[in-house]
Amino acid sequence: MENVSVIIVAGGSGSRMGAEIPKQFLRLNGTPILAITLRRFLDALPDCRVTVVLPAGEIPRWKAICAEEGLENTHLVCAGGDTRFASVLNGLDTAGDCDYIAVHDGVRPLVSPDMIRRCLSVAAAYGTAIPAVRPVDSFRRLTENDGDSHPIDRECLRAVQTPQVFRADLLLNAYGQPYRHEFTDDASVVETYGTRITLCEGERSNIKITTPEDLCIAEALLARSECQR
Amino acid sequence: MENVSVIIVAGGSGSRMGAEIPKQFLRLNGTPILAITLRRFLDALPDCRVTVVLPAGEIPRWKAICAEEGLENTHLVCAGGDTRFASVLNGLDTAGDCDYIAVHDGVRPLVSPDMIRRCLSVAAAYGTAIPAVRPVDSFRRLTENDGDSHPIDRECLRAVQTPQVFRADLLLNAYGQPYRHEFTDDASVVETYGTRITLCEGERSNIKITTPEDLCIAEALLARSECQR
Repeated sequence: MENVSVIIVAGGSGSRMGAEIPKQFLRLNGTPILAITLRRFLDALPDCRVTVVLPAGEIPRWKAICAEEGLENTHLVCAGGDTRFASVLNGLDTAGDCDYIAVHDGVRPLVSPDMIRRCLSVAAAYGTAIPAVRPVDSFRRLTENDGDSHPIDRECLRAVQTPQVFRADLLLNAYGQPYRHEFTDDASVVETYGTRITLCEGERSNIKITTPEDLCIAEALLARSECQR
Repeated sequence: MENVSVIIVAGGSGSRMGAEIPKQFLRLNGTPILAITLRRFLDALPDCRVTVVLPAGEIPRWKAICAEEGLENTHLVCAGGDTRFASVLNGLDTAGDCDYIAVHDGVRPLVSPDMIRRCLSVAAAYGTAIPAVRPVDSFRRLTENDGDSHPIDRECLRAVQTPQVFRADLLLNAYGQPYRHEFTDDASVVETYGTRITLCEGERSNIKITTPEDLCIAEALLARSECQR
């Protein structure tokens, strides 16, 4: 495998969870979400350099979790910023000299090591790899008239996930741009800079945990994947 | 409550499940999915008239399940057609004289009785009620150039669910149109006929079960909702 840096972004405050502690530290079958996420990358790419980006005030809590989980000295930690863009930018400062950079949501702990390696292979071939899945539901788009909406052809829609993997120079150059409100993920940052995005196959189970229901779903999926090993 | 007919569409063959039996008959914590779905409507609207639409060859299996589950004489059954449109059309033949018609996917067993009643209230006020939820993921839209895609503003997207509820005359007139390929749900049929669609709040847990992973997710959500009662 090529020389890879991984940035795991875990800047969320967990307000949608209604929980006291940020969602990246909630436990799935006993293990903090962020610890599961980190282990998936260490398993998939044993030689990669991982940086975990956290709100500055949450770093002590993460250090304690790492001690408990035996994850000390496996990765770097840095403080995030006010936006996801600012958090990734801080993470990029620590990425060091590398060929590829993967950026992953800390609250997507169910990503499989196979999928991580597959995204890296696609980025090696095309420069970028944005995992995405075909949605099951029908979708509508709200129009500017209050309350109006129109259908969207589902065959053309893809739900975007992470890890989003990029040739390092493409990502670093793109993050030299000033922040824009439309930057919802790294693909949008790189694309605004003028780089063509390559989609690859995501995994339906690679969900983003943002509500108490998601936590319950993730526990069920985790139990299922462990049964199947 | 007004005079309501419910059409539960369960025409699927279950091929995406990799299972021998159609997905609407797979069991969630021991109970066939379609039996759970049916009970949700009988609980929410005790006086409604329900028709379950099934592939003709699956009707004997459903009758046996109804005997086992104590669901005989609670609803009508009719045979479906080759498309969802044809199945709903067959169901409409049995809907009888009513003020409102709700059409629901048989493989959405987690719809809450509250949500069913809420959709009916919205349809009573506006003529149509299409439940929808705001997606969590970012989305991209594939363009006609092979492999190209562009981002969609997530704030404007809504994932559409069922039950979709309509004033009976609006739905019956719309189903007088010839079939079109773009008819992915009842909202699209009614809208093509020229009626304005009203969206209302869906429920994230109201998932459509189409894969073995969804079955696992649905079991977890069902267990959770039962704990919370």
